[in-house]
Amino acid sequence: MKFIHVNMTSGAIAETPVPEKYQVLGGRGLTSIMINDRVPAGCDPLGEDNLLIFAPGYLSGTPLVNTGRLSIGAKSPLTGGIKESNVGGAMASALARLGIRAIIIEGKAPEDAWHHLVIDRAGSASLVDARDCHRMGNYALVERLQKDFGEKNAISSIGPAGEMCLKSASIQTTSPDGIPSRAAARGGLGAVMGAKGLKALVVSKQGRLAPPIADAEGFKAVSKRFAAAIKRDGWSGRVLPEYGTASILANTDASGALPTRNARQGSFEGADRINGDAVAHTIRQRGGQTTHKGCSQCIINCSNVYVDTAGNPVTAALEYETLWSMGAMTGIDDLDAIARLDFLCDDIGLDTMNTGVALAVAMDAGAIQFGDAPAAIDMVASVAQGTPMGRRIGNGPEAVGHHLNHSRVPTIKGQSIAGYDPRAMPGMGVTYATSPMGGDHTAGFVGGASGSTDVLRNASQSAQVHMAATDSMGLCMFAQSGGMDNLFRAIGAMMGAPFDAKTWQQLGTRILTAEIDFNRRAGLTEEADRLPKMFHTEALSPHYGTVPYPEKDLHGTFAALRQRLEAKE
Amino acid sequence: MKFIHVNMTSGAIAETPVPEKYQVLGGRGLTSIMINDRVPAGCDPLGEDNLLIFAPGYLSGTPLVNTGRLSIGAKSPLTGGIKESNVGGAMASALARLGIRAIIIEGKAPEDAWHHLVIDRAGSASLVDARDCHRMGNYALVERLQKDFGEKNAISSIGPAGEMCLKSASIQTTSPDGIPSRAAARGGLGAVMGAKGLKALVVSKQGRLAPPIADAEGFKAVSKRFAAAIKRDGWSGRVLPEYGTASILANTDASGALPTRNARQGSFEGADRINGDAVAHTIRQRGGQTTHKGCSQCIINCSNVYVDTAGNPVTAALEYETLWSMGAMTGIDDLDAIARLDFLCDDIGLDTMNTGVALAVAMDAGAIQFGDAPAAIDMVASVAQGTPMGRRIGNGPEAVGHHLNHSRVPTIKGQSIAGYDPRAMPGMGVTYATSPMGGDHTAGFVGGASGSTDVLRNASQSAQVHMAATDSMGLCMFAQSGGMDNLFRAIGAMMGAPFDAKTWQQLGTRILTAEIDFNRRAGLTEEADRLPKMFHTEALSPHYGTVPYPEKDLHGTFAALRQRLEAKE
Repeated sequence: MKFIHVNMTSGAIAETPVPEKYQVLGGRGLTSIMINDRVPAGCDPLGEDNLLIFAPGYLSGTPLVNTGRLSIGAKSPLTGGIKESNVGGAMASALARLGIRAIIIEGKAPEDAWHHLVIDRAGSASLVDARDCHRMGNYALVERLQKDFGEKNAISSIGPAGEMCLKSASIQTTSPDGIPSRAAARGGLGAVMGAKGLKALVVSKQGRLAPPIADAEGFKAVSKRFAAAIKRDGWSGRVLPEYGTASILANTDASGALPTRNARQGSFEGADRINGDAVAHTIRQRGGQTTHKGCSQCIINCSNVYVDTAGNPVTAALEYETLWSMGAMTGIDDLDAIARLDFLCDDIGLDTMNTGVALAVAMDAGAIQFGDAPAAIDMVASVAQGTPMGRRIGNGPEAVGHHLNHSRVPTIKGQSIAGYDPRAMPGMGVTYATSPMGGDHTAGFVGGASGSTDVLRNASQSAQVHMAATDSMGLCMFAQSGGMDNLFRAIGAMMGAPFDAKTWQQLGTRILTAEIDFNRRAGLTEEADRLPKMFHTEALSPHYGTVPYPEKDLHGTFAALRQRLEAKE
Repeated sequence: MKFIHVNMTSGAIAETPVPEKYQVLGGRGLTSIMINDRVPAGCDPLGEDNLLIFAPGYLSGTPLVNTGRLSIGAKSPLTGGIKESNVGGAMASALARLGIRAIIIEGKAPEDAWHHLVIDRAGSASLVDARDCHRMGNYALVERLQKDFGEKNAISSIGPAGEMCLKSASIQTTSPDGIPSRAAARGGLGAVMGAKGLKALVVSKQGRLAPPIADAEGFKAVSKRFAAAIKRDGWSGRVLPEYGTASILANTDASGALPTRNARQGSFEGADRINGDAVAHTIRQRGGQTTHKGCSQCIINCSNVYVDTAGNPVTAALEYETLWSMGAMTGIDDLDAIARLDFLCDDIGLDTMNTGVALAVAMDAGAIQFGDAPAAIDMVASVAQGTPMGRRIGNGPEAVGHHLNHSRVPTIKGQSIAGYDPRAMPGMGVTYATSPMGGDHTAGFVGGASGSTDVLRNASQSAQVHMAATDSMGLCMFAQSGGMDNLFRAIGAMMGAPFDAKTWQQLGTRILTAEIDFNRRAGLTEEADRLPKMFHTEALSPHYGTVPYPEKDLHGTFAALRQRLEAKE
């Protein structure tokens, strides 16, 4: 397995073997630990000292199913801290099967220089001039690249938002059938890619260098059991294939935890029109796909293809978080409008969550009306044109709030919350506040409406350690139903060394510690671990009050870990 | 603190100090460990060798809020194993404030002999002839006892079902305002009380012997913080006071986890008519109480008083589990009918869950129609008359299934599941199957729709250990929002000894081990830890399949603990 180093300043490309220190790491483990080791914490995220690292999970490319997630890491222009954003699609497997553990993008291209990084079926990398693709949306870009380089490539790319270095810019990745619909959405990593002058990463899917496995027989046997358990599970085997993540919406709404109209309510009267049943029914009626493979190696197929009344594809994977951010949060209950907004974000290269919440803040401030779908569509479309308001929307909720002098901005470290109100799900509030990633639901999901602060803090800490390890494996979080014991056995078989729950904990803790260390040195101390004031002062109708803990109580979540870091200094 | 021993064979009453071995135990800790020590595991639950133990929680009667739960323990005639059923109301505080740690009912009264056990304000106990109360329902009985002994008493009593030794018989306990609406419902403990010839326990609420506290100042300080945290919590401070546990229903229904029509569906089209909003709206409109104090020392007040159209009380505490069992499970979507069924169960002294599920089985077998409320009401009313069908309904779902030769019976160890379908919430399935208590949602709640078997087993085991410790303290499970750290400090201040998360774990493990040990010796080995076949063979519409684990995989949950027990033998 190898690293590919690409210096965008000089254009030099080098290959190295994986250094000893990083041997048994993949995904988020590699990106976060390398960034902490190698990126000056105080650097400009859009400057030449930042690194942009693409790393497939440790298990990506192996015969174990649902391990096709790609981690992308950098210092974030949105949060000012370390960022790992992971994404499905076809890229992680493609890289792993070329024997590539990580691509490390360094430096910064001269102004107006744009390149694609192309890696062929032999694993050989080259930079190709991309000036003719300037300002192309991801959909047209992918079509063009497939014409130029062939269809048997996985593509990760940025749209106009990334080129403009907007803080909500995503890096889109193609699904196995070539739709640029999978987003490494969070943290504005598309802006880092834009700052480096890299328009697209084009990687052959024809590699044959699957990662080495010490005990191939053992690995194969446990992989079978893992896949069978995923299929047997009600959620990953039934609900997700048929309804996707949209199935969560009815539930969140019923429990009063669905942030609605910029989190002024916890329940949306239009929920029935945008929930999992509505999405599946509409797609089925129009002849779209309710079940769609969004990631290589996936056997769950929670993605979908939403179509218009004529049956033409509008967007792929209308998912819970987008239905929430572009729907409930903005008061829009029209699935066709939400699908259009989702397409625009994928095409322009924007985080749908940060962008939906930016719209919600604009609505809350009175710039446009809640529920005004045409105005919302115009606003998002204007991001591609780079108009002043478009740039603000593309820079996220805080930029919009700042411009409109409006303080009800539901962000943590600059990044929007997800579709779970911390007043109704206080454990999610702890994760939002304390995750080194900023407001993030995948950083450590903590369910439930109740719990004392100490219990919530412990639950969040455990979940965050667990997810750090999960994200280092390339494992889809929904595939945990395959069995952690099976997973540990697979990892052990691959390494040729014992691996158990304790090793897993140690791995997660090592990754999280590196992230917290980087953030501390970047100036994001414990003081930054806070929720916006609105959650401490406004009750959430219909059911809930404010969050049940004072701000300072959140700081203790990683106290032991922080103390150890300080002691080391 | 003292024990009161009452021998129903001889009529002898004795007081003893709490033996050294049981010094720091209360509630379920006392009942389960003493039963394992003193009851022959193979005995007839309705015979003279069984003990019926009433024990307030270790913290009951102290200034710590929400610690007013009473544990009642015995060998269960329903499950054939050990049983602890805990209940709110006014009894636990009353006993604790008389310095009573436990009442141990031994022996068996001669045929046709009925007694009340009356404990006056001085803590002195006597048996009073109760033959004139024979076959009285709990409501009339409590009125009579309040006339005879005064209103300043807490009363725990059985109705006709307990007198007839029916296997779903409850022991009802009065709320602070004297309504016999709180039920120690599960496991048929009312039948054990009936077999002993004990109609009621009447205990003065005027005791002044609060349990001794080693560090009174420390205890007081932490109690304040504990109460403030409960009030601050969204669930215990807002939702429960306003909507009660009924608030859960919309959520369970939306996620497809609400067992409907004898668990043929996971969602009920009539859910909107019986959910938390419907209950609160109806009560408010008619002038009842949406917020009602069901337990002494309670600051949450999740109980309610449901009234008829004229504003007259029908029943107290229309709760989630009853709305589920008498509503969704039977296909009845009429709140007035459900309230009537709830009243009948409280009055006759029946577990609403086991009884609702018994009705659902009768409906599923075609004896009456799903949704036929008048027929359901007649059937439950007939339990009091002791008709053959009435006795079968009162003996629970398995008795009904056996009689009607119908095998779709959702019970574990004879006891019905609760309102969470194990196919949609597989972690609850692990708890149902493996809890020494039989199908029980309070034995170890595990949320979530997904998870691998090992993760679910671990989650269930942890939750079961945690709940065993919780139930030994007299703590309301909703009051955990007060903070486990605060709780540990309070226990430590009371004991005058360090108490922390590890001590808590040890306590819970000790209790659970005693229960599993008793069951093993009673013939409930690991083989009894299984879900009914229907959950393994029938998919759950609209969302779920069968449970995601084969039957034998459930057996491992307490493997280590069982091995230790076997090694000891």
